[in-house]
Amino acid sequence: MTVAVVGTGLVGTSVALAAVRGGFEVRAWDADPATLAIAAAHDGVTGCDDLAQAVAGSSLVIVATPIAAIPAVVAETLAAAPDAVVTDAGSIKGHVVAGAWSSATSRGLSLERFVPSHPMGGSERSGPAHASAALIDGIVWAVTPTAVSTDAAITRLEAFITAVGARPVRLTPERHDRLVAMVSHLPQVASTALMSLAATEEADEPDILLLAAGGFRDLTRLAASSPGLWSEILLANRDEVIRAIDLYVGRLRRLRDEVGARSGEGVERIFREAKGARLGLTAKPQVRAGVAVLQVPIPDRPGGLAAVTIGLAEAGVNIEDLQIVHSPEGGRGLVHLTVAADAADGAASVLASHDLDPVRLA
Amino acid sequence: MTVAVVGTGLVGTSVALAAVRGGFEVRAWDADPATLAIAAAHDGVTGCDDLAQAVAGSSLVIVATPIAAIPAVVAETLAAAPDAVVTDAGSIKGHVVAGAWSSATSRGLSLERFVPSHPMGGSERSGPAHASAALIDGIVWAVTPTAVSTDAAITRLEAFITAVGARPVRLTPERHDRLVAMVSHLPQVASTALMSLAATEEADEPDILLLAAGGFRDLTRLAASSPGLWSEILLANRDEVIRAIDLYVGRLRRLRDEVGARSGEGVERIFREAKGARLGLTAKPQVRAGVAVLQVPIPDRPGGLAAVTIGLAEAGVNIEDLQIVHSPEGGRGLVHLTVAADAADGAASVLASHDLDPVRLA
Repeated sequence: MTVAVVGTGLVGTSVALAAVRGGFEVRAWDADPATLAIAAAHDGVTGCDDLAQAVAGSSLVIVATPIAAIPAVVAETLAAAPDAVVTDAGSIKGHVVAGAWSSATSRGLSLERFVPSHPMGGSERSGPAHASAALIDGIVWAVTPTAVSTDAAITRLEAFITAVGARPVRLTPERHDRLVAMVSHLPQVASTALMSLAATEEADEPDILLLAAGGFRDLTRLAASSPGLWSEILLANRDEVIRAIDLYVGRLRRLRDEVGARSGEGVERIFREAKGARLGLTAKPQVRAGVAVLQVPIPDRPGGLAAVTIGLAEAGVNIEDLQIVHSPEGGRGLVHLTVAADAADGAASVLASHDLDPVRLA
Repeated sequence: MTVAVVGTGLVGTSVALAAVRGGFEVRAWDADPATLAIAAAHDGVTGCDDLAQAVAGSSLVIVATPIAAIPAVVAETLAAAPDAVVTDAGSIKGHVVAGAWSSATSRGLSLERFVPSHPMGGSERSGPAHASAALIDGIVWAVTPTAVSTDAAITRLEAFITAVGARPVRLTPERHDRLVAMVSHLPQVASTALMSLAATEEADEPDILLLAAGGFRDLTRLAASSPGLWSEILLANRDEVIRAIDLYVGRLRRLRDEVGARSGEGVERIFREAKGARLGLTAKPQVRAGVAVLQVPIPDRPGGLAAVTIGLAEAGVNIEDLQIVHSPEGGRGLVHLTVAADAADGAASVLASHDLDPVRLA
């Protein structure tokens, strides 16, 4: 089976490499010859001279161009590859579907073979030089069929996603955009607004950031993300982002009102609900069923963390997540390690045998 | 010089141990005999039968009881130890000062020798069994004199703080409460409100948390904190917490309005300001002057992280902070390492020699 990738940036090239690894024949094209050359330098990826040549005879075409270009490229692909299922990799779906709809219908094309999707991997890096099949491993890949996408087309895309090592999750484009507004776009906005506020306050209170400890740092880490990229994403998902901010402001006001009313019980109730939900979240969806968190104090000096990681590596325990807490404030680090639940007891004994003092938190 | 600690929980006992290490003679008392016994089992800490016995003849008394008990204990201590400087360790200051003022004046005592303070260390653990002098190392210890605290009293407290290895930062009680509202209480509220909102949405959209990746997890980590403790703190700093939430809501609305107006430039401007401020924040205040952040991709398997930490340990490079990003979504980890700026080049070469591919971000 032949697949084609159009747009060989980080995501497109990573999908191409995962497809090669999965045994597919892979053709690729990019509007920029230099970008295409990097992708086509990989074994198994055939660079093509133009879009028509790349998609001709393909069973599946993945359009991984910048979001603004997707609708036109999808329409062109549907016309050039009459037997292919076509998908895209844009991070907002409603926008893409509406654009593809008008591009395709103006050319008299049906969208039955178009199944929009969103591989939810990503990386802070960009460009094909940093691409890797490993970027696709285990990620959630949202599949967001239009009203006219056929079952056969959806099934072909989902089989491909599974074959390259990712996990298809089917949603409507509208639900996708609503959910990412809540779990991706709103956290970004919440973080940026907090950092922006503290920076303004700092002009009056130069000591403010001196007191900023672990919690503040956790909450503002996202605020270092790319302004240009995020501006584009928030505007493309405008209505859902506004809805999410309004709901968030409402929730903040509820907490504010409980504090204002001096209702310890009301504040505690909201905190208890949130705590319960947070403890239900775990490092990776694929291990959500069972993880444990170990808290381990470590000395804040060269090698302090190595004692933890070496011990676990020797014992064959994978670290699903690791957080350093509290070291910002002092000469002592406290590490939270997330490991698979069935590895927790073994991990704790290994750490104890390295003179560490792990405590199981969850 | 003799110091007394009243209230031997985690903070009180840690201060006592740091004082022993600093060469002070240390007496201690706690209303709970079992709690006192654990503290007094440490070499150099003398457990006393009552408060009067503990504080008699002391130069400095640290009151580290629960916040509600502080005013009465401070007044009792001022009466029982006529030559001592008295401080407390409460996390809110205005509340404590007002309470101490009324407790002391009703007994005809002057507050000249009372200098409120707040050692900003803390730990997720509690109780004297987890205490350690290392908890005090390098922390910011806010010193918040009242209007009548004498210079001599303030100087004696600050000399003690320095002698036990912490860093005195002088603020008025009001500024302290305003600043912690912004950098500690508001992040807690922002995190809890976000988790609370997503949990509500999840009832309608069971897939929502499946899509929740690294950013959402960073933002909601604090939401797992103790509901009872936080309800007490927020109510004790009520007015400043309300002010901080209102300012935050205002900032969120500004972002919302720029998105609503489809102003890419306006959104980008807020994001750029926040990004600049965030990059200025670093792991520890004491190394703020110069740190670097290295981004290192690691394989998501046992030993992946050990390769990073072993290499740096061998090279004598201290890891100031470490964050795993993106592994929640896939089979690949990206680590952000914070190291001293003058160690960054060395760290990068060591990592490269271990077949890792570090990129300097900041």
